[in-house]
Amino acid sequence: MKLALVFGGNSYEHEISIVSAIALKKVIKKELLFIFLDEGGEFWLIDAANMKSTYFAKREYKKAKQLYLQKDGFFTKGFFGFSALEKVCVVNLAHGGDGEDGRLASMFDFYGVPYVGPRTEVCVMSFNKLYTKSLGLICGVKTLEHKTIFKKERDAKIDLSYPVIIKPSRLGSSIGVSVVKSQKELDYALDVAFEFDDAVIVEPFIENVREFNVAGAKIKGEIVCSNIEEPQKEGYLDFEKKYMDFSRTGEVEAAGIDEALGARLKEAFAKIYDFGFDGAIIRCDFFVVDGEVYLNEVNPIPGSLANYLFADFNHLLDGVTRSLPHPRRIKVDYKYINDIKSAKGKL
Amino acid sequence: MKLALVFGGNSYEHEISIVSAIALKKVIKKELLFIFLDEGGEFWLIDAANMKSTYFAKREYKKAKQLYLQKDGFFTKGFFGFSALEKVCVVNLAHGGDGEDGRLASMFDFYGVPYVGPRTEVCVMSFNKLYTKSLGLICGVKTLEHKTIFKKERDAKIDLSYPVIIKPSRLGSSIGVSVVKSQKELDYALDVAFEFDDAVIVEPFIENVREFNVAGAKIKGEIVCSNIEEPQKEGYLDFEKKYMDFSRTGEVEAAGIDEALGARLKEAFAKIYDFGFDGAIIRCDFFVVDGEVYLNEVNPIPGSLANYLFADFNHLLDGVTRSLPHPRRIKVDYKYINDIKSAKGKL
Repeated sequence: MKLALVFGGNSYEHEISIVSAIALKKVIKKELLFIFLDEGGEFWLIDAANMKSTYFAKREYKKAKQLYLQKDGFFTKGFFGFSALEKVCVVNLAHGGDGEDGRLASMFDFYGVPYVGPRTEVCVMSFNKLYTKSLGLICGVKTLEHKTIFKKERDAKIDLSYPVIIKPSRLGSSIGVSVVKSQKELDYALDVAFEFDDAVIVEPFIENVREFNVAGAKIKGEIVCSNIEEPQKEGYLDFEKKYMDFSRTGEVEAAGIDEALGARLKEAFAKIYDFGFDGAIIRCDFFVVDGEVYLNEVNPIPGSLANYLFADFNHLLDGVTRSLPHPRRIKVDYKYINDIKSAKGKL
Repeated sequence: MKLALVFGGNSYEHEISIVSAIALKKVIKKELLFIFLDEGGEFWLIDAANMKSTYFAKREYKKAKQLYLQKDGFFTKGFFGFSALEKVCVVNLAHGGDGEDGRLASMFDFYGVPYVGPRTEVCVMSFNKLYTKSLGLICGVKTLEHKTIFKKERDAKIDLSYPVIIKPSRLGSSIGVSVVKSQKELDYALDVAFEFDDAVIVEPFIENVREFNVAGAKIKGEIVCSNIEEPQKEGYLDFEKKYMDFSRTGEVEAAGIDEALGARLKEAFAKIYDFGFDGAIIRCDFFVVDGEVYLNEVNPIPGSLANYLFADFNHLLDGVTRSLPHPRRIKVDYKYINDIKSAKGKL
């Protein structure tokens, strides 16, 4: 079965999703289909030769063949109705809205389309940073202390000491994020964050905190972790820098850390992954503060699937496609209706 | 715009969803469409005259007109291709899987179909009882102490004193739930619960605990609460009893409680509702222990929409359909691709 990269989506990360798909086109050795989801919710089958960012920016994709998602897969519409596209296994590359908020996952599960990517439940748990805190708590992985501010009660006092970092609760890629050094910068930072969400998370901003990224997936019941990367940063990653990050394809150097810390980071990764990320290649970003590991965020669809962290990404991807979880299908036997009808007369 | 009840789904609660729809047919005064979702994921347009439980149990619905969900609504397939059904506002009545796990909500949001019902995020937060605990914590509403047991570590010790109640983490309607009075009953109860889910919640079972149900919705920014009901029970509600419960249509007596407790229950309801249930009519079930209010569970699609708790359900439903939240649509301008392209040359 061919793989089909699905990318785009109605999302602040629409454009980096395109960049991500172009990067993976270079990395994946198998023959691929490319399915673009435009901002309006329409799917398009893109020729490999057209996988260039300007093709989308100029909206030339509208000349491509439109696809429709239905039971068992994608369809094209012709003069005599729908015809099924060849069966594919989707790779969900739609960062942010549609891809990471659980919409596409729900649709693929509903229509019985196999896909590499996070399932609806864990999408929700990692898309909203408030729930990521809960996920950490449930899985036994620490997260930084935090305060939530809701738009309607934005005058609430922040009882954390400055500097703090302000994040909209539902966006990735540093959009709407600010580091605030004093009370007088707070208002503006909240204005920015509330443009993107009604709930904002405030956390201590720890200067020069060590950050480590671990990616991985589960293959035949075993969790496989990537190299551990200590990303280089100045202050924190801004959107443009992260944007370039999504086009990464080269393998990175493993972080120079001792074996014990490496093992603890991988153990924390496994605890999170095991909670329902089966079928996805995810990246967890951790902080290490005073020797303790803290979960910062879960990227359930990391930029270019964090391919650069794996020694053999093609092997990994192939393993994941062979280890996809199957949604529980329930057999309805109308036993209750029949029983109750015979007991109580007509319902 | 007509309302369309969508019911059924691939769910252990498929049959009670049918019962629920039949009950609402009697209650709702507006002209309705009936859209049945069969266990295989196919939608069918059901004649009002056929809204009888045996029609479904005998699978006669397969002679009805099949519907397809696409952009902006449902479609029928004819000799000359697809034609749009009249525009409807869906009322999501699919209890359990598909309806309450976020799949239908995701699809309605994706395709731009207006609907009464919980959005994906809060579906996930209330479908999984583990997350309901998190929801309570985030919203400032207490929940009972609990322990989680995962299938793979089922020998874990339960450090709660008996009796306890064992619940699969993701099912409603008392399916797979047992009250366990001693250690020797535990194994069997876990066997039952693990048939339905890989994660099980154990809570203290409090004999004769007072339970109160409050339903409500938000209309034009204001939360409207129902009468408060103190449900009658023997031990706890078993599936068959609950099943009959889904067919309720008569108005209930308000619970005989003092005003202060009533106000606290409604305040707890509002805290939960405000967290993202806009657009839905939900029912929260609370325990009161030693004067403290505890959230037991959130029913984001309660049986027959808890119509029997409202003095004027038709007025409420009408208000909710006029107060639906609109999903945030993002305008993609390809600014980043254009900027980066001009800065860095071809991507």
